[in-house]
Amino acid sequence: MPILHPDRLFPADPETRSIARRLYASISDLPIVSPHGHTEAAWFAKNDPFPDPAQLLILPDHYVYRMLYSQGVSMHDLGIRQAGAIDSRKIWRIFAEHYHLFRGTPTRMWLDYEFEVLFGLDQRLSAETADHSFDVIAEKLQQPEFLPRALYERFRIEVLATTDSPLDSLEHHRAIRESNWKGRILPTFRPDSVVDPAFHGFRENIIRLGEQTGEDTMTWPGYLNALCKSRERFKALGATATDHGHPTANTANLDKQEAESLFTAILSANSTAEQQELFRAQMLTEMARMSIDDGLVMQLHPGSFRNHNQKIFEQFGRDTGADIPTRTDYVHGLKPLLDLFGNEPSFTLILFTLDESTYSRELAPLAGHYPCLRLGPPWWFHDSPEGMLRFREMATETAGFYNTVGFNDDTRAFLSIPARHDVARRADSAYLARLVAEHRIDEDEAFELAQDLTVNLVRRAYRL
Amino acid sequence: MPILHPDRLFPADPETRSIARRLYASISDLPIVSPHGHTEAAWFAKNDPFPDPAQLLILPDHYVYRMLYSQGVSMHDLGIRQAGAIDSRKIWRIFAEHYHLFRGTPTRMWLDYEFEVLFGLDQRLSAETADHSFDVIAEKLQQPEFLPRALYERFRIEVLATTDSPLDSLEHHRAIRESNWKGRILPTFRPDSVVDPAFHGFRENIIRLGEQTGEDTMTWPGYLNALCKSRERFKALGATATDHGHPTANTANLDKQEAESLFTAILSANSTAEQQELFRAQMLTEMARMSIDDGLVMQLHPGSFRNHNQKIFEQFGRDTGADIPTRTDYVHGLKPLLDLFGNEPSFTLILFTLDESTYSRELAPLAGHYPCLRLGPPWWFHDSPEGMLRFREMATETAGFYNTVGFNDDTRAFLSIPARHDVARRADSAYLARLVAEHRIDEDEAFELAQDLTVNLVRRAYRL
Amino acid sequence: MPILHPDRLFPADPETRSIARRLYASISDLPIVSPHGHTEAAWFAKNDPFPDPAQLLILPDHYVYRMLYSQGVSMHDLGIRQAGAIDSRKIWRIFAEHYHLFRGTPTRMWLDYEFEVLFGLDQRLSAETADHSFDVIAEKLQQPEFLPRALYERFRIEVLATTDSPLDSLEHHRAIRESNWKGRILPTFRPDSVVDPAFHGFRENIIRLGEQTGEDTMTWPGYLNALCKSRERFKALGATATDHGHPTANTANLDKQEAESLFTAILSANSTAEQQELFRAQMLTEMARMSIDDGLVMQLHPGSFRNHNQKIFEQFGRDTGADIPTRTDYVHGLKPLLDLFGNEPSFTLILFTLDESTYSRELAPLAGHYPCLRLGPPWWFHDSPEGMLRFREMATETAGFYNTVGFNDDTRAFLSIPARHDVARRADSAYLARLVAEHRIDEDEAFELAQDLTVNLVRRAYRL
Repeated sequence: MPILHPDRLFPADPETRSIARRLYASISDLPIVSPHGHTEAAWFAKNDPFPDPAQLLILPDHYVYRMLYSQGVSMHDLGIRQAGAIDSRKIWRIFAEHYHLFRGTPTRMWLDYEFEVLFGLDQRLSAETADHSFDVIAEKLQQPEFLPRALYERFRIEVLATTDSPLDSLEHHRAIRESNWKGRILPTFRPDSVVDPAFHGFRENIIRLGEQTGEDTMTWPGYLNALCKSRERFKALGATATDHGHPTANTANLDKQEAESLFTAILSANSTAEQQELFRAQMLTEMARMSIDDGLVMQLHPGSFRNHNQKIFEQFGRDTGADIPTRTDYVHGLKPLLDLFGNEPSFTLILFTLDESTYSRELAPLAGHYPCLRLGPPWWFHDSPEGMLRFREMATETAGFYNTVGFNDDTRAFLSIPARHDVARRADSAYLARLVAEHRIDEDEAFELAQDLTVNLVRRAYRL
Repeated sequence: MPILHPDRLFPADPETRSIARRLYASISDLPIVSPHGHTEAAWFAKNDPFPDPAQLLILPDHYVYRMLYSQGVSMHDLGIRQAGAIDSRKIWRIFAEHYHLFRGTPTRMWLDYEFEVLFGLDQRLSAETADHSFDVIAEKLQQPEFLPRALYERFRIEVLATTDSPLDSLEHHRAIRESNWKGRILPTFRPDSVVDPAFHGFRENIIRLGEQTGEDTMTWPGYLNALCKSRERFKALGATATDHGHPTANTANLDKQEAESLFTAILSANSTAEQQELFRAQMLTEMARMSIDDGLVMQLHPGSFRNHNQKIFEQFGRDTGADIPTRTDYVHGLKPLLDLFGNEPSFTLILFTLDESTYSRELAPLAGHYPCLRLGPPWWFHDSPEGMLRFREMATETAGFYNTVGFNDDTRAFLSIPARHDVARRADSAYLARLVAEHRIDEDEAFELAQDLTVNLVRRAYRL
Repeated sequence: MPILHPDRLFPADPETRSIARRLYASISDLPIVSPHGHTEAAWFAKNDPFPDPAQLLILPDHYVYRMLYSQGVSMHDLGIRQAGAIDSRKIWRIFAEHYHLFRGTPTRMWLDYEFEVLFGLDQRLSAETADHSFDVIAEKLQQPEFLPRALYERFRIEVLATTDSPLDSLEHHRAIRESNWKGRILPTFRPDSVVDPAFHGFRENIIRLGEQTGEDTMTWPGYLNALCKSRERFKALGATATDHGHPTANTANLDKQEAESLFTAILSANSTAEQQELFRAQMLTEMARMSIDDGLVMQLHPGSFRNHNQKIFEQFGRDTGADIPTRTDYVHGLKPLLDLFGNEPSFTLILFTLDESTYSRELAPLAGHYPCLRLGPPWWFHDSPEGMLRFREMATETAGFYNTVGFNDDTRAFLSIPARHDVARRADSAYLARLVAEHRIDEDEAFELAQDLTVNLVRRAYRL
């Protein structure tokens, strides 16, 4: 019995469903364009087999273990960030026993897709099927068709962007370029470690950045030069975009002297939280300025309260499923940057949010006016069928479709990429089908839009 | 081939759709009651033909050109606020080439209605059909049936309110009254220019107000008297309402002495932003007090960050599509005013919002309790099929239908008025049909509600 | 003609509706578990007949009279909080004449259920049917089957929690326990009167608490001891939970000395609003600490601006329908408490909200990570079909179903309890049916979930 139904995520009304089916059929085989994600270039450079099911699908996926943890499963039993050997089969069994927790979540939908489409399993995961599925997946992962490059090709990926620190050597990106492989793996410039004073080791990072670039990063002009050079290095390896993950959407427009003395204050040991926030705000503006110069598309991901769970952070570190969204103000926050560059024809700033109340109130009205702005797809917790539907319903009427940029899978779970794009394509087909069924757009327009939402808008927005 | 489908905006489910059809049929021919909008009395006083298609449908409509601008079309190429001659046909072609940008937006729906129902066009606007549609529309606009008064009658308008400054002579309103024409065009008292210290020329405006009314508007009592007299002048020409467009929903209740010295501070050249905000807050309370005296219904439209795009503002001025919604707090903001007048039986305050998160959290709970409060229809960016649906879904269960006031077209695009009311009637029919199909109200109630939402509530709330 | 349709609240699509019907049939007869509400233990202790229809269904129900008041019916004409005799039939007639105001509201749905299912009426309430319905209800209320205990049994209630002040003697709870009656009526510890410095008579309440418990509540340790003892007294009578109704979700983690001096300041006559807020914040943390010790489940209901209408408050007192929701921040507010106890396996904190924008942004992400957190059902104004749907749509994808706790009726309207649970069961069936119809969960899972949402999750979360 198949796990997946061919009509999943399509509206129940038969007429609407039939339109959705046809729309989906027209896009389901299109290539995957993945301009924003967190896979590792090393996988494709080395092309080693992925590890066992638990190490591949559970340990790196905080969507999975945050849910298990929320229901009383200990991080220790799951082997999260554990030194020494772990018992992968045991972890897999715990996961399988708790699989019902994921009912109604996108994680469940992505995993079911992987189980059936990638691994050929035909039974829902449960305590009973745990061992069988573990064995099947473990065995397949050793086959040549499951090596990273083979999967990249099987997934019909056209381009796959990683996310990288300016301090990264990008050696794996270079190795891929230098190999004969045709896969297009691009780095993305993500400078948190050298622009966010609250980042662990910030001062040391800036010193390293200076060493890397031959600039005196202890001075404001040298620091800016170093960032420019670093961006050039990314561009040379194919990067088309930068990415900025700030706690707020605040930007600033300090004059040179103010910026310089703020930079000095920030480098000292005792800068205040206000100074740090102002510095991050100023750095968004600096990054926009550089984008206008070098043509890198700018992405802004604000509004996550990182590492909210203090004990888990102390014990297990960053990125363990304890980042929580907060209210975000784009209208006042972005004004200084937009006052400077909002009308620049060559500038693209893609906005994301974790605060859905901003879709119709702030983001769609901003993107429906400023030529530089585009709306990124529903992000993180909102990258889900209901989340995507809310995004379309709340953004489209004011921003239109053409101020959006298609889908981002935004994942480090490489094997989930086709599943995620499949959900997005189904969700878009369902939404468009409803517009057609309610005679809000014509059917020929829906087919054109389906192509645009799947491949055209993303290629254009990210300059791919 | 018709552009419009007779079932547009009705739910796809056949049973629900058939209910929606019947409900809509019962209200589609009812007169249009338009208690809030931005048409010009001069049109109806002079009854001159409207200009060509571009000057009629593009240049004054910031919904249209904000979208084009967001996608890289220059304001200059569109002829926006340009001195000297413009090439209307060229502008129309640009618009037609970009018509796909409006897919899924209410602008598209309104324009399609105008094209088909008013102008008899039968092909979707596109680069190919641009010239033909331009010619047809341009030609029709010269015909007597397309003169403002003829259209008013053809549209079955029962009453049409404009929005006017206290400094306006209202001469055109007077001229309409003095003519033999039966159309009911009413002014609305919109005092921003004389109550908002941030308004351009505020001090001069107050001096002019004094001259107009024979009051010493440099004193607090004289200023208030002048406003009273000005309101009386509007009433004498048929006004039944005032309208207030503030950045926030803040109100204040200063004692006479505090108010007096605030007024003095405000008239000086160097009042602070806080003083200006407090003055606006106090003026809402003063306006409420006057409403209780003179019976004018009060409308509050808060939460727009006006002229967000600094460069566009400097180059093109106000109202060029760059107003952006902001978060609004009604619960704390309105408290001072409601403490004074919230329980006055003769007072009506109609609240609008650009912050949809307030529908279920603040507005419906407030309107479902305070006798003076009513909820205005979805406003501006939210005057759209999805926006209307969200409003009903989020407000009805707490405020009921009877604390709402029907539809406002709120437009300066006179030709779009029937289209806008048609969308609203379809959206209401669709919502009511769903309630009937899910047995949440009975069908006889839905028919009664459809009438109420279309004509009865608006007549009652606006005292028309 | 019946008032209620058997398919009410089910989606119109025939296939989805048929799934909803089957799901509902599987849970409609399950017992009612009511872990949070505002009925009175005295009713079940004394088992006296309920008063006449107006005194039973209108006067105590601020949902009902807030709507009537909002439409101009005076509180006086409704007999609200009036000294002396009231004319119940006259009040009932006023209510009946205005019954159309409730169209589309949950109040209407609950009352219709009571009219038909409990009282056997078969005509919609209106001016015409007012007297008949009054007579029928009045007569039935005198019958033995309508006594509180008989209704409890007829409603198939498994457990019913009340909400009680620490200052309450709980004598009626004790009387019920000491009687032979098998009904399970449990108290809930709701300490507002002794932990909120803004509560009327706060200082006197603390003195009384000291007398009750034999502790010196003028000292910080004595005060905490008194609260512990008071909780123990509740536990001894079956309480499994506490409930906290704060204006915000703020918590604090003061050290002992800070807490002690804050307590001293609070007991003085002139504490500031900031001190009072900080004290409430600290007390949530203290309550959490006590919960870990004594195992009582903690409920937090923040975000209501109590008694917003000053004149109505002065004339009629608290709880008269004038409480208005406000924006609430859980992410920063709860951090101090979660830093201390967020990972405690034995601790359960159930969060409610009046700010729906927090469902997807804050609450679901928090509950999908912290082991102690669970999401309470849609609360107050949001306890409605659309409100429940929004909750499921916005919370499920991130928190899953298993971090929620089933339904609360949260009512003092005892006769509405079956109606409210019926609406919740129908709403859950409708939601699950859509997931099945769209192949997002399998049908066997939906049946299991329906049971879980109806009885299993609530029993587990509230330790019943």
